[in-house]
Amino acid sequence: MRILGIDPGTGILGFGIIEIDTKNKAHLVDAGVIRTPVKEDDAVRLLTIYEELTDIIMQSKPDIMAVEKLFFVTNVTTAMTVAQARGVVLLAGMQNELTIAEYTPLQIKQALTGYGRAEKKQIQEMVRVILTLKEVPKPDDAADALAAAITHSMTMKVA
Amino acid sequence: MRILGIDPGTGILGFGIIEIDTKNKAHLVDAGVIRTPVKEDDAVRLLTIYEELTDIIMQSKPDIMAVEKLFFVTNVTTAMTVAQARGVVLLAGMQNELTIAEYTPLQIKQALTGYGRAEKKQIQEMVRVILTLKEVPKPDDAADALAAAITHSMTMKVA
Repeated sequence: MRILGIDPGTGILGFGIIEIDTKNKAHLVDAGVIRTPVKEDDAVRLLTIYEELTDIIMQSKPDIMAVEKLFFVTNVTTAMTVAQARGVVLLAGMQNELTIAEYTPLQIKQALTGYGRAEKKQIQEMVRVILTLKEVPKPDDAADALAAAITHSMTMKVA
Repeated sequence: MRILGIDPGTGILGFGIIEIDTKNKAHLVDAGVIRTPVKEDDAVRLLTIYEELTDIIMQSKPDIMAVEKLFFVTNVTTAMTVAQARGVVLLAGMQNELTIAEYTPLQIKQALTGYGRAEKKQIQEMVRVILTLKEVPKPDDAADALAAAITHSMTMKVA
């Protein structure tokens, strides 16, 4: 089973793909970010995100999309642009017939560390350990996307 | 010139199409709403909005999309789902090579009534008068979408 994790954003959107083997071990397939220029209009940036993400889905052929869900909001304007990006992310997932799961940052922290107030560094270190990598994947958005994908694999095992 | 106005929403999204003739008079082409069931997941609803809106664009062939912009937020959860819908609306516009303009409720009120604190009923009555209709278009979301389209046509005349 292959899971595509997404950390949505307009300026930078993280993605991370993991493969779960028959022994329930998670392996890194790919991870990275989609960047869009701040100077472009929202609509142009959303089209770039949609097209690049659709390419990633078609090349990596995941079964499931695990998307980080915005939980609480400090800046409404930023939150709106992130939500717009989430809209096209969910659309791309649906159009490629992926099962879509959404996880809050709290759920991701709890799944990876058993502790809802874990720090970002701890989460990223857990991503490194679970995927048996030498280094934490960079940039942070790619690691966060992998954390969402891992959360889905762990939540499934519990169920 | 043909303008497609959009009042974004997840449960109900209003659209309204007007044609501006060579004398700058606006005529109603079509108006209505896209509804999606509350019980469906966000991703399913976004796909429905995207597909129905794409059909509307392909059938009515507008040149411009005028989208109402969320201005202030009373309920963050609602605002997030509206922003997600805006994301797929902007995407559909870009994919069909429409010029995209965004207007805040304040800009729409000022364009139609010259008064930024005009009431919803006044705006809708202005839509009826400008388009020389017997009745205000129903439901409200369709009338609001037409107001966004009219705002674009009036803003262009001023420019």
